[in-house]
Amino acid sequence: MRKIRAAIIGSTGYTGIELLRILSSHPTVEIITVTSRSEKGRYVGELFPSLRDRCEVKYSDPEGFRGDSCDIVFFAAPNGVAMQYAPDLLKAGVRIIDLSADFRIKDQFLWEKWYGMTHLCPHLLKEAVYGLTETNREHIRSAQLIANPGCYPTAVQLGYIPLLEKNLVDTGSLIADAKSGVSGAGRKASLHTAMCEVNESFKAYNASAHRHQPEIKQQLELVTGGDVTLTFTPHLVPMSRGIFATLYAKLLDGSISNESLQAVFEQRYIDEPFVDVLPFSAHPQTISVRGTNHCHIAVHRPYDGDTVVVLSVEDNLVKGAAGQAVQNMNLMCGLSETCGLDYIPLFP
Amino acid sequence: MRKIRAAIIGSTGYTGIELLRILSSHPTVEIITVTSRSEKGRYVGELFPSLRDRCEVKYSDPEGFRGDSCDIVFFAAPNGVAMQYAPDLLKAGVRIIDLSADFRIKDQFLWEKWYGMTHLCPHLLKEAVYGLTETNREHIRSAQLIANPGCYPTAVQLGYIPLLEKNLVDTGSLIADAKSGVSGAGRKASLHTAMCEVNESFKAYNASAHRHQPEIKQQLELVTGGDVTLTFTPHLVPMSRGIFATLYAKLLDGSISNESLQAVFEQRYIDEPFVDVLPFSAHPQTISVRGTNHCHIAVHRPYDGDTVVVLSVEDNLVKGAAGQAVQNMNLMCGLSETCGLDYIPLFP
Amino acid sequence: MRKIRAAIIGSTGYTGIELLRILSSHPTVEIITVTSRSEKGRYVGELFPSLRDRCEVKYSDPEGFRGDSCDIVFFAAPNGVAMQYAPDLLKAGVRIIDLSADFRIKDQFLWEKWYGMTHLCPHLLKEAVYGLTETNREHIRSAQLIANPGCYPTAVQLGYIPLLEKNLVDTGSLIADAKSGVSGAGRKASLHTAMCEVNESFKAYNASAHRHQPEIKQQLELVTGGDVTLTFTPHLVPMSRGIFATLYAKLLDGSISNESLQAVFEQRYIDEPFVDVLPFSAHPQTISVRGTNHCHIAVHRPYDGDTVVVLSVEDNLVKGAAGQAVQNMNLMCGLSETCGLDYIPLFP
Amino acid sequence: MRKIRAAIIGSTGYTGIELLRILSSHPTVEIITVTSRSEKGRYVGELFPSLRDRCEVKYSDPEGFRGDSCDIVFFAAPNGVAMQYAPDLLKAGVRIIDLSADFRIKDQFLWEKWYGMTHLCPHLLKEAVYGLTETNREHIRSAQLIANPGCYPTAVQLGYIPLLEKNLVDTGSLIADAKSGVSGAGRKASLHTAMCEVNESFKAYNASAHRHQPEIKQQLELVTGGDVTLTFTPHLVPMSRGIFATLYAKLLDGSISNESLQAVFEQRYIDEPFVDVLPFSAHPQTISVRGTNHCHIAVHRPYDGDTVVVLSVEDNLVKGAAGQAVQNMNLMCGLSETCGLDYIPLFP
Repeated sequence: MRKIRAAIIGSTGYTGIELLRILSSHPTVEIITVTSRSEKGRYVGELFPSLRDRCEVKYSDPEGFRGDSCDIVFFAAPNGVAMQYAPDLLKAGVRIIDLSADFRIKDQFLWEKWYGMTHLCPHLLKEAVYGLTETNREHIRSAQLIANPGCYPTAVQLGYIPLLEKNLVDTGSLIADAKSGVSGAGRKASLHTAMCEVNESFKAYNASAHRHQPEIKQQLELVTGGDVTLTFTPHLVPMSRGIFATLYAKLLDGSISNESLQAVFEQRYIDEPFVDVLPFSAHPQTISVRGTNHCHIAVHRPYDGDTVVVLSVEDNLVKGAAGQAVQNMNLMCGLSETCGLDYIPLFP
Repeated sequence: MRKIRAAIIGSTGYTGIELLRILSSHPTVEIITVTSRSEKGRYVGELFPSLRDRCEVKYSDPEGFRGDSCDIVFFAAPNGVAMQYAPDLLKAGVRIIDLSADFRIKDQFLWEKWYGMTHLCPHLLKEAVYGLTETNREHIRSAQLIANPGCYPTAVQLGYIPLLEKNLVDTGSLIADAKSGVSGAGRKASLHTAMCEVNESFKAYNASAHRHQPEIKQQLELVTGGDVTLTFTPHLVPMSRGIFATLYAKLLDGSISNESLQAVFEQRYIDEPFVDVLPFSAHPQTISVRGTNHCHIAVHRPYDGDTVVVLSVEDNLVKGAAGQAVQNMNLMCGLSETCGLDYIPLFP
Repeated sequence: MRKIRAAIIGSTGYTGIELLRILSSHPTVEIITVTSRSEKGRYVGELFPSLRDRCEVKYSDPEGFRGDSCDIVFFAAPNGVAMQYAPDLLKAGVRIIDLSADFRIKDQFLWEKWYGMTHLCPHLLKEAVYGLTETNREHIRSAQLIANPGCYPTAVQLGYIPLLEKNLVDTGSLIADAKSGVSGAGRKASLHTAMCEVNESFKAYNASAHRHQPEIKQQLELVTGGDVTLTFTPHLVPMSRGIFATLYAKLLDGSISNESLQAVFEQRYIDEPFVDVLPFSAHPQTISVRGTNHCHIAVHRPYDGDTVVVLSVEDNLVKGAAGQAVQNMNLMCGLSETCGLDYIPLFP
Repeated sequence: MRKIRAAIIGSTGYTGIELLRILSSHPTVEIITVTSRSEKGRYVGELFPSLRDRCEVKYSDPEGFRGDSCDIVFFAAPNGVAMQYAPDLLKAGVRIIDLSADFRIKDQFLWEKWYGMTHLCPHLLKEAVYGLTETNREHIRSAQLIANPGCYPTAVQLGYIPLLEKNLVDTGSLIADAKSGVSGAGRKASLHTAMCEVNESFKAYNASAHRHQPEIKQQLELVTGGDVTLTFTPHLVPMSRGIFATLYAKLLDGSISNESLQAVFEQRYIDEPFVDVLPFSAHPQTISVRGTNHCHIAVHRPYDGDTVVVLSVEDNLVKGAAGQAVQNMNLMCGLSETCGLDYIPLFP
């Protein structure tokens, strides 16, 4: 079988390094191009000792990247890059998985407001397929352009979807209190992510407004078919990896039993290889999914009242980024969805 | 001026060590007794190098502790110890500040349900004064027996009180998503708090039910004079110290301005030496109050909607325990409330 | 091909969990028995969410374990357990890899002094093959009983061996300053490894005497054929995994060039799949080998003087324990030495 | 008593913030000027919430700073700044404590080689007094210009000095293996100190050559009066604060008893308020001195051999920088040496 020829644009950030890690051991992928303006000419393994002898490819300049020799191009670059390349690549028949936010929001004006740029190819916004595999599997198989979901949106949607699909909760008062490890802020020289600034401390950030809120809202409204009011508060945890979303919703019918609630989640995800519903009222931890493409979900109902609390846990760089991208690639290329994603997490 | 003669029962835990730290440099306190069954006969500074040469007192056996030579006795022992000593100490005219939970809940049956013991002196439950200084200052001055608040309850109450006192929010849908450093779990040999089990991970615990929920509910209901429905979810942060409470409430009148909301908080705490209201939509961090008795509060209102989000931050061992205890002692002894609590936090 | 039938005795510690992780995804191993006195009857994945759905085996009671249906038995139990089972297992033709210290030291009296027990089968001490693969490959292939090296001894030996084999340094003044993550202390309820006791602090421990010193000394003396004087100081790093050994030695001939020194290391390990010699004066990090069986080594020579400094880095639970055990198993079973050990580390 | 009027040049780094913390609660100091090019016009407490309401001074532009209204000027700026201001300030009779490296090395050519700049006032190198209080107390009292020691040099010198002053060890083979928290790298936007790059990892850096080696060597040679050969290897610990130095030396006379060795240290530091000699073979930890000006020292002698191992522990930002600077200021101003430095460390 011919290997899938893949390029990664922007692969010196944590998401890009994670893509390199996963694709380097993927049995049917060949990484033919990785680009980096600052690191061109250097071997990947020279920059990242974790990839020494495992990824024998040199960074090339993104200028002049054409991609027509690729089957698929991953964008792990900052927002605003993928939209520069997408039209030409699509014309050349190359498939795209964009791990940035360029194609996540369908409404051009809303996108431009939140991302502070003019969109260069708004006509592709409709064509782009939102890559939350568990909700969009069939469209992803045949997609040319995937908008890979944000890290928070993945954990939050997976936790809320079973409740919303069954119309079990008040969609006017959803509250998602989310916590992320520091790698979510990207790999760059910045005082905000310096060890001494974040270590041994905890804080919220962008608590009044965060870009992932409109993305989550858009997607949840596709599920409900109506307005969703969502309060979303992101926090920074002094650790490298992991997202933990604590999701609150008010049950429309307080007489539903805990067993029924649990069953709703179990049935929704019974065939999903990467979503594990833990026993009712279990306590998932980020470390249990670290380095893997799994999402662990547990349902709580404090004091058997009418508030349901869903705990949804993922690795922000895997299921929240690179892993989900590869899961989507697998689907697009007719492979088993789990191919090359079969990791057992380290503990500790 | 004669120094206040203080005893600390149970001072090998983090709360007790913190009391020793604060009282050792308090200008008008003399620590005359510290007890520990396991460490009797050893000097404090031998066990805790941080107190070397600063606290020249030996642990004695709690058996046979009488306390009648003390002005005040602090209990930093596990739940169930203070209630064994309280009646005799009170009879002897000794004042008590209990940092455990023995006297926090007024309803005996509720207490026994949550703490799994028979209460030995339920007649004292009414007499005990709840030691949240900012709400109870006058009663504390003349109290004989202080029930020092729990760590989570302190942060949560301080964040909600301004809204509840002004009747601004729906008391039927409060959601407190709280996060604590590991020291909140106490100092003991336990796999649950082992470095390798908690490091680089994040999780909720007791998400369906936690002992601090009834305490908070009881106290908030004293403010509102009616029922309060509170969902309370505690989480464990991979750091040693600090509590961060993210508090959600629905505004009864969505037309209130952000300026008015902010003013409600600023006015409520304008004279409080240990509660700082940060500018509207600021982002407090636990590290900014580490080692101090301060609580930092910031008010957010995402998308100017009808949900208000209050961020309330404290050091769980200081304002959430030992610091608040000393603040109360100062009041009880006619000292300045801030005496001996004048710390500037380390950064980083 | 029939799978190798493996048992793990004592698999609730970090070393045992790591063995489970590696063996669960090893292509030619079937785990047929795991034992735990405290957890018997429970599924592995119930205890360790990281192994959910990946290791479908239940803990059984070590009492009554016979092992005759196994091809190989791993001991990841505390010291003193393997020696109880070894004679019978060997008689039954079962091969043993002991990850504890029972068979590491050849001198019975020295072992008993350091480990504080009477050895139950001293006649096996000579028969046991020390499992540092890079020095003992041929003996390991045919061994029945492997004494898997300690975590520190692995990193220290791999760093010193090239110098000692070539007789380049003074063996009377070796200094190994070693640092380990907390998982090296094992998985147990203990105040010494509690998050709040070790987090944000650094310390040496057993600086006057540590059990791994005689093991290292014994093995280095096998290389030199004469006395070795080694000062060994272990330290505790506030992280979960990783060992970093900083090794000092005095060159016998100060006129040797840096290029020659580097060549000694590169040639020694040129065919070793798990030992990477980094460029001269590089700075390896523990994170680059986390979760893998690799040892990264770099050679320094400060101010081109006559002291050589070797930096040797490994994951204490993998190359320092479970990974090396599987590397040895591969050899013993005629498999490729790297089979099932092909991990790319997470970064970050 | 008139307060000491102090200025701090460069006070947005960790050393500067630490000076602000200490001086803000120092009873006889008034901070009249703090400078920062980037932050001019902002209040200190606005930038650093830990100093909110405790340091009511605004940053001013260092351009145009004259300092003649000050009694003392602290430089917590990068290397190369203090030497620009020193000559004029000294002429104006202002005293200077330089926490950077500008005046630490007496040999101009050596300084210029290591620091990569031309020295602007080499004539002051001789006049500058090296501010290791424990060795230079009398000169410091009357000094105009203090070269405050580096963080590593403080810990290393305090550990070696008792041995060298008594001529007990071979000065041709000293090995200092030192470990520092990340704050030692300063406060700046840098990938090297980003949380995700340093967290859960351990490494050496500058292992072949580090600027603090010639400083330590110069000072130790002042003690011995002859050549000292020192191998110095710095490492980075994944924590914010603290330095741990493991110091190796070969005893000239192996017949010295452990009691005598211990006595040498105890006698040397018997009157030192900030150096604590722990019991023989104790294990100091960085957390025990965090936030304080103390250095804890313990002496080991593995296997009663002829190598002595000294463990020397300090907070790199306090005894290794700002605290020692204030200790020196106290001496220069005729105050008690411990004035304003009376901190009890937090635990945990």
